[in-house]
Amino acid sequence: MEQERDVEAVIGDCAVYETGLRSSTRLPMQQAAQAARRTDGFVWIGLQNPTAEDVLKVAQEFRLPPLAVEDAIKARQRPKLEIYEDEHVWFMVLRPVRYVDREEIVEVEEIALFVGEHFLVSVRHGDNDVLTRVRRELDAGKLEASQRGPIAVLHRVADLIVDEYALVAAAIEDDIAEIEQQVFGEREADHTERIYKLKREVLEFRRAVLPLGEPVLKLMSGAGALAGIDKGARKYFRDVHDHIMRVTDEIERQDSLLSDVLQANVARLSVTQNDVAMRQNEDMRKISAWAAIGLAPTAIAGVYGMNFEHMPELGWKYGYLYALALIASISVGLWALFKRNDWL
Amino acid sequence: MEQERDVEAVIGDCAVYETGLRSSTRLPMQQAAQAARRTDGFVWIGLQNPTAEDVLKVAQEFRLPPLAVEDAIKARQRPKLEIYEDEHVWFMVLRPVRYVDREEIVEVEEIALFVGEHFLVSVRHGDNDVLTRVRRELDAGKLEASQRGPIAVLHRVADLIVDEYALVAAAIEDDIAEIEQQVFGEREADHTERIYKLKREVLEFRRAVLPLGEPVLKLMSGAGALAGIDKGARKYFRDVHDHIMRVTDEIERQDSLLSDVLQANVARLSVTQNDVAMRQNEDMRKISAWAAIGLAPTAIAGVYGMNFEHMPELGWKYGYLYALALIASISVGLWALFKRNDWL
Amino acid sequence: MEQERDVEAVIGDCAVYETGLRSSTRLPMQQAAQAARRTDGFVWIGLQNPTAEDVLKVAQEFRLPPLAVEDAIKARQRPKLEIYEDEHVWFMVLRPVRYVDREEIVEVEEIALFVGEHFLVSVRHGDNDVLTRVRRELDAGKLEASQRGPIAVLHRVADLIVDEYALVAAAIEDDIAEIEQQVFGEREADHTERIYKLKREVLEFRRAVLPLGEPVLKLMSGAGALAGIDKGARKYFRDVHDHIMRVTDEIERQDSLLSDVLQANVARLSVTQNDVAMRQNEDMRKISAWAAIGLAPTAIAGVYGMNFEHMPELGWKYGYLYALALIASISVGLWALFKRNDWL
Amino acid sequence: MEQERDVEAVIGDCAVYETGLRSSTRLPMQQAAQAARRTDGFVWIGLQNPTAEDVLKVAQEFRLPPLAVEDAIKARQRPKLEIYEDEHVWFMVLRPVRYVDREEIVEVEEIALFVGEHFLVSVRHGDNDVLTRVRRELDAGKLEASQRGPIAVLHRVADLIVDEYALVAAAIEDDIAEIEQQVFGEREADHTERIYKLKREVLEFRRAVLPLGEPVLKLMSGAGALAGIDKGARKYFRDVHDHIMRVTDEIERQDSLLSDVLQANVARLSVTQNDVAMRQNEDMRKISAWAAIGLAPTAIAGVYGMNFEHMPELGWKYGYLYALALIASISVGLWALFKRNDWL
Amino acid sequence: MEQERDVEAVIGDCAVYETGLRSSTRLPMQQAAQAARRTDGFVWIGLQNPTAEDVLKVAQEFRLPPLAVEDAIKARQRPKLEIYEDEHVWFMVLRPVRYVDREEIVEVEEIALFVGEHFLVSVRHGDNDVLTRVRRELDAGKLEASQRGPIAVLHRVADLIVDEYALVAAAIEDDIAEIEQQVFGEREADHTERIYKLKREVLEFRRAVLPLGEPVLKLMSGAGALAGIDKGARKYFRDVHDHIMRVTDEIERQDSLLSDVLQANVARLSVTQNDVAMRQNEDMRKISAWAAIGLAPTAIAGVYGMNFEHMPELGWKYGYLYALALIASISVGLWALFKRNDWL
Repeated sequence: MEQERDVEAVIGDCAVYETGLRSSTRLPMQQAAQAARRTDGFVWIGLQNPTAEDVLKVAQEFRLPPLAVEDAIKARQRPKLEIYEDEHVWFMVLRPVRYVDREEIVEVEEIALFVGEHFLVSVRHGDNDVLTRVRRELDAGKLEASQRGPIAVLHRVADLIVDEYALVAAAIEDDIAEIEQQVFGEREADHTERIYKLKREVLEFRRAVLPLGEPVLKLMSGAGALAGIDKGARKYFRDVHDHIMRVTDEIERQDSLLSDVLQANVARLSVTQNDVAMRQNEDMRKISAWAAIGLAPTAIAGVYGMNFEHMPELGWKYGYLYALALIASISVGLWALFKRNDWL
Repeated sequence: MEQERDVEAVIGDCAVYETGLRSSTRLPMQQAAQAARRTDGFVWIGLQNPTAEDVLKVAQEFRLPPLAVEDAIKARQRPKLEIYEDEHVWFMVLRPVRYVDREEIVEVEEIALFVGEHFLVSVRHGDNDVLTRVRRELDAGKLEASQRGPIAVLHRVADLIVDEYALVAAAIEDDIAEIEQQVFGEREADHTERIYKLKREVLEFRRAVLPLGEPVLKLMSGAGALAGIDKGARKYFRDVHDHIMRVTDEIERQDSLLSDVLQANVARLSVTQNDVAMRQNEDMRKISAWAAIGLAPTAIAGVYGMNFEHMPELGWKYGYLYALALIASISVGLWALFKRNDWL
Repeated sequence: MEQERDVEAVIGDCAVYETGLRSSTRLPMQQAAQAARRTDGFVWIGLQNPTAEDVLKVAQEFRLPPLAVEDAIKARQRPKLEIYEDEHVWFMVLRPVRYVDREEIVEVEEIALFVGEHFLVSVRHGDNDVLTRVRRELDAGKLEASQRGPIAVLHRVADLIVDEYALVAAAIEDDIAEIEQQVFGEREADHTERIYKLKREVLEFRRAVLPLGEPVLKLMSGAGALAGIDKGARKYFRDVHDHIMRVTDEIERQDSLLSDVLQANVARLSVTQNDVAMRQNEDMRKISAWAAIGLAPTAIAGVYGMNFEHMPELGWKYGYLYALALIASISVGLWALFKRNDWL
Repeated sequence: MEQERDVEAVIGDCAVYETGLRSSTRLPMQQAAQAARRTDGFVWIGLQNPTAEDVLKVAQEFRLPPLAVEDAIKARQRPKLEIYEDEHVWFMVLRPVRYVDREEIVEVEEIALFVGEHFLVSVRHGDNDVLTRVRRELDAGKLEASQRGPIAVLHRVADLIVDEYALVAAAIEDDIAEIEQQVFGEREADHTERIYKLKREVLEFRRAVLPLGEPVLKLMSGAGALAGIDKGARKYFRDVHDHIMRVTDEIERQDSLLSDVLQANVARLSVTQNDVAMRQNEDMRKISAWAAIGLAPTAIAGVYGMNFEHMPELGWKYGYLYALALIASISVGLWALFKRNDWL
Repeated sequence: MEQERDVEAVIGDCAVYETGLRSSTRLPMQQAAQAARRTDGFVWIGLQNPTAEDVLKVAQEFRLPPLAVEDAIKARQRPKLEIYEDEHVWFMVLRPVRYVDREEIVEVEEIALFVGEHFLVSVRHGDNDVLTRVRRELDAGKLEASQRGPIAVLHRVADLIVDEYALVAAAIEDDIAEIEQQVFGEREADHTERIYKLKREVLEFRRAVLPLGEPVLKLMSGAGALAGIDKGARKYFRDVHDHIMRVTDEIERQDSLLSDVLQANVARLSVTQNDVAMRQNEDMRKISAWAAIGLAPTAIAGVYGMNFEHMPELGWKYGYLYALALIASISVGLWALFKRNDWL
C-alpha cells in the first residue's frame, strides 16, 4: 500500500483514451494496467524521473520486456527503436535537447517509451515538457492523429522533439554568426576557447540526433516487423525523418564551419600579433637610430674636450662655432642617411 | 468572394494545357480545379510567395496531401521528392540558387511542386524566374516534351534550376581563381576572411544541391512507386542527374580547394611576415653595430680628456694627431671586425 | 601423467553444468571431455595464460578446429566470431580493456572462447577477472540466462566486457575534461604530449572495440549459420550490440575532441607566447627610450666640456645653471616626445 | 551541297570495316550512314572539333539520341556511359588527359563515342591523337580484337586513354619526388605555391578519372542492359577497370602526399625562419654586450675628466696608469661576466 | 633449342606433385606442360624475374589467358584475383613487402600466380623468398594442406606474405615509438622529414595490402565462380583474410598516428623555439638595462667635466666625493627601479 503510493508520486498522469478522447480521470497504476487489458483504446501512464523500483513495478504490471526496462532505468542511452515481438511491445528511446544560450551549452535529456497495442508507458528523465504538451493536446482532443492510438502519441512526441532540434540548430547558427563577427571584427582577442566549446556542444548534439535517423527510417518504411504500421502513420514518420535529415545536414555543416572558423581565428590572431610585433620592431629601430645619431655630438665634443697641449682648433677664434657646426652637420648627415635606409 | 480575390493576387498564372498546348486563358483558381477533373491534359496553377492561407485554399480545391502542404508553406526545406500514393500526388521541393558576385553570396530560394495526373501546383518562395520561363516556353509550344504533361514541366523546371547550379559553380570557380592570384601574388595581405566566407557559401550551395541527387536518381530509374514514369521521361531525368553529379563533383572540389588555399594563405602570410621581421632584425643589428662603433671615439676622447697631471701623451707635439689616428684606426678596426661577423 | 598435471595447473576451474546449475566438483580435463560427450548440460573448462602445448592438449580432447586453436594460442587477435560448421564449434575472440588512470594507458587483454553444443573452452591471456566473475555467477545460480547453456555464458562474458568498455570511455572522458581545463586555464604550459598520448590510447581502445560490432550484430540478427540461436538469446546480444554502438560513438567523439583540443592547445600556446614576447618587446622599447633620453645630458655636457678658448657661455655668471637647465629641458622634451609616440 | 562539304571538313576519316578489316576508302557521311544499314561489319565516322551543326547533321543520319547528341556538342561532361535502349545506341564520354610537365598542368580533353550495332560515331574535342592511333591500328589489321566490331574500338580507345592516365600519374609522381627533395633539401625557400598548384591539378585529374570507374565496371560485369557484351569483351574491360583502379589509388595517394608535404613545408619553413631569427637575436645580444662593455671606459674617463679642485688621484704620479688599469680591469671583468652569462 | 635454354635459366624449379608429394625431379618446361595434362596431381613451374619472352613461351605451353600474361609481365600491378572461366585458370597477383629498417623504406615486390586444375605457374619479380620457402615445405611433405593441390600452394603463399605484412607493421610500429620518444624527448630537433618519409612508406605499404582484402574475401566466401573451392580451403583463406584485416587496422592507425605526431612535432618545435627566443629577449633586456644604468655615471661625470667658470661644486672640499656619491646613488637607484620593473 505504502509502496504503491511511492509509484503514484512519480506518475505524472495516467488515463484511458478511447476513440482518440480521454475517457477516464487519473487512474492508479494497477487499475490502469487492468484497463489496458480491457479497452479498445489505450492507457497512457507517464513516469517522471522514477527510481529503478518505480519502473520495475510498472514493468511488472504491464509485462514489459526486462532488457528494455533496464535501459529505461539507466539514462544516457542512444536514441533507438527496439521491437520485442514476444511481448508485442516497441521500445523507443528519444533524446530531447535544449540549448542554454547564455552558457552555450546543449542539454540532452531522455525519454523512453514503451508502446503496446493498448498501452503506452512513458519514462522521462529530466524536466523536458514534451510529454506534458502531447498529453495536453490529446486531452483537448486536438491531436489530429489520435484515432491511431499509441503510435500517434509516439509520432507526436518524436515530432515535437525533432522540432526542438531545429530550434537548437538555429540557436547554434546564431552563435556561430556571432563568433564569425568577432573573429573578423575585433582583431586582438582570442576566440579559441569559445569556438572549441561550441564545437564540443555540436558534437554532443549530433550524438543525440544522428542515431535517431535509422529507427525513424524504419518506422517510415514500415519494413519487416514494423509492417503493422499503417500507411497513414508511415507518412507522418516520413515527415519526422525529413526533419531529422535537415537537422543532421545542419549539424554537419556547423561542425565543418566551426573547424574552419577555428583555423581562421588562429590565422587572424597570428596576423594581428605579427602586426603588433612589427610595429614594436619599427619603434625599436627608430629609437635605436635616434640614439645612434645622439652618439655623434658626444663623440665630437669628447674629442674637443681632450687636454692635449697642441690642438690648433682650440685656439681658433670661431673654433667653438666650428665644433657646433660640425656636430650639427654630422647629426643631420646621419639623420639623412638613416632616413634613406628607412631606419627612421 | 473577397477572400477569393486574395488568392488570385498571388497566382502568377493559371491555365489548362491540352496536347501540349495552352487551351485556355487565365482561369480563376476554383474553375481551374474543376477543369483539372475534366481535362485530358492538365491545369497548371502557379503561386508566388503565397501566405499559408493562400496555399491552404488551393490545397483544399486540389485535395493536396496535408503534410506536403505544410512543407510548401514553410520555406527552407531540403530538396526532396515525396510520393503520396493515396492522393496520387508527387511532391517535389527544389532549391534554385543565385550567386551575387559582388558580395560573393549564394542566395538560395525555394520552389515546391505538386504534380497530379491532371494538374500541377507550383509554389514559389523568392523571386526566381524559372517557373515563368518554363510557363513561357509551354505557352509558346516550345517545350519539346510537353506531350507528356505535368512531368514534362517538372523535368523542365528541374533542368533549368540545375543549369543555374552550373553557372553558380562557374562563378565560384572564378572567385577561387581570383583568390589564388591574390594569395600567390600580392604578398602582404590577409585573405582569411574572404576565403572563409566563400567556403561558407560553398557549404550553403552544397546543401541545396547534394540532397537533390537521390530523388532525381529515383525519377531516372523509375523504381517502385515511380514505375509510372515512361522511359522517355526517365531519360530526361538521367540528363538532369548527370548535371547534378557534375555540379556535386565541382562543389566537393571547390570545398577542398578552398581548404587548401586557406592553408596556403596562412603559410604565405607567415612567410611574408617572417621576411619583414628578418629585415627589421637586420636593420636593428646594423644600427646597433654602428652605435657600438660610435662608442669607441667617445671612450678614447674621454681618456684624453682626463685631468691627470702626469699624462705624457698630452705634452707630445703630435699627441692630438696621434689621438685622432687612434680613434680612426679603432673605429675602422671595429668596422672590419663587424663586417667579418656579418653584423654590418 | 606428469604432463597431465601441467595442463591442470593452468586450468582455473572445470565443471559440468546441468539445467543451469553446477552438477560436479572440479574435474580433471580428460574426464571433463568425456562428460561433455554424455551430458545434456555443458562442461566449462577455463584456461589461464596457457602455453601452446596446454591449449593443444585441450584442443585434442575437445576436437577443436586447428585454425581457431592457433589463434587462441597467439594473443593479439582482432575481436571476431568464427563458425566452424564441421566441428560444430563457434570461436569468439574478445578483448577486455582496462584503463590505468594514473598513467593514462589503455591496457588491452584477450579472451578466446570455443563454444560447442555441450562444452565451453575459455582461454584467457592476461589477468582479467571477467571469466571468474561469470563462473561465480553461474556457480551461484545467479546467471539468469543459464538455462540456455554455453551461449548464455558467451553472452554474459561479452556483456561484462562491454560494460567495462563503458567505464573506460567514461574514465577517458574525465581525462579529456581535465585536459580541457588545463588548456583553457593555466596558460603557459604545453599539453601536447599528454593530448597526443591520450589520443594514441583512444586509437588503441577503438581497435579493441570497433571490430566487435560486426560479430555481435551477426549474433543479434541470427543470420545464416547462426540461425540456431534462439530468439531469446538474440535479444540479449542486441543489448550488447547497443552498448558497443554507444561506446563506439563515444570513442569517435573523443578522438575528434582530442584532435580539436590539440589544435586549441597550439593556438592558446602561440597566443600566450606571443603575449610574453610582446611584453618583452615593450620593455625593450622602454629601456631603449630611457637610454636615448640619457644620451642627451652626456652630449650637452660634452659640448661644454670642450676646451676651446673662445666659448662665451663658459664665462657667463649663470652659465652653469643655464647648462643644467638646457639638459633638463631637452631631457624632459625628449621624454614628452617619446611619451607621445607611445615609446614610453 | 555546300553544307555537306562543311561537315566533311571536320570528319577525320570515315570508312566501312568488315570482319575486322577496312573494306572501303573514305566515304562521304551520307553514304556511310547508308552503308551502316547494309553492312555486317560497321562504319566508323570520326568528327574532329565539330560545331553543333556538324554533330546535328551526323546525328540525323545515324538517328542518334538527342540528349546524348547535346552532351557530345557541349564539351566538359563527366566520363559516363549511357544506354539508349530504344535507339540501340550506347553513348560514352571519355576524358583523355595530358600532363604538361613544364607548367605542371593537367590538360583534360574530351572524346564522345556513339556505339551502334553497325556504326561508331566518334566526336573529339581538343587535339588528342588516341582516336587516330586506334584508327591506324584498325586499318593495319593490327587491332587484335577487331572481329568484335565497334565495341572492340570502344575498348581500345578506353584502353589507350587509361594507359595515358598511368603516364600522367607517373609524371606527377616525379614532380612530387622533386618537391620532396626541395622541401627537405634547400631550406630557405617557400614551396607553398608549387605544392598547392600541383594539388589543384591532381584534383582536376581525379575528376577526369574517378567517375570512369563505374561505367567501366558495368561494361566489365555485363549486367542489365549490357548483357549483350560477350564474355570475351568483358574480360578486356576488366583489364581497363583494373588500370583505372590502380590510377585512382595513385591519385588518392598523391593527393594525400601533397597534403602532407604542404604541412611539412610549412613546418620546415617555420623551423628555418626561426633558426635565422635566433641567429639574428644572438648577434644582437653580442653587439649590445660589447656596447655595454664599451660604456665602462667612457664612464671612468668621464669621472677623471671632472674639474673638481680636490681630486687626489689627479696629482698621483701614476694616476694616469692607475686610471688606464682601472678601465682595463673593469672592461675585462665585464667581458668575463658576460661570457659566463652566455651573452657573448 | 638455344631459345629453350633461355627459359630454363629463369625457371627456379619445376616438378610434378602427386597426392601432396613431389613425384618427379626437375623437369624442362615443355615436359612439364605435357605432364600437367596427364597427372592427377599438379605441376608447379616457377619463373624468377623472367623477361617478357620467357613468360610468353610458358604461357603458350600452358595456354594461359593473354591479358593475365600481360599483367604478369609488367610488374607494379594491384593485388588482385581474376577468374578466367574459359581457360579454367585463376590469376592472382600478390605483393610481398619488406621493411628496410635502416633506411625506413618499405620495399614492395611482386608475385603473380596462374592456378589451373593441374598446374601452377608462379612468376616472381624481385628476390623475395616466399615461393622458395613454400616449395621447400611442399618438397619436404610438410605442407599440411598439400592434398588439395595448387590452391593449397596459393593459400600458403598468400599466408606467408600476409605474415610478413605483420612483421613490417610491427617494425613500423617500433619506428613510430622511436619517433615519439624523440619528439617528446630531445626538444630542439626537427623530426618533420623522418615523420613525413615514414608516412609516405606507410602509404606505400597500404597500397600493397588494402586491395588484397577483397579477393581474399572472395576466396574465403567461395561465392560465384569460386564455388569450386571446397569448404576446407575456404577456412584457410578466412584466416588469411583475418590477418589482412588486422594489418589493415594497424596501417590505418599508424597513418593516423603519424599525422598526429607530425602535428605534435610542429607544436613542440614552436614551443621550444619560442622558449629560446624568450630567453634571448630576456638577455637583451638585461643587457640593455645594464647599459642604461651605465649611462648615468657618464652623464654626471660629463656635467662636472664642463668648463664653466662658475661651478660652485668644483670648489667644494668634498666635491669629488659628493660627485662619486651622486653617481653611485643614481646608479643604485636605477638598478632598484629596473629590478622592480622586472627588467633585470
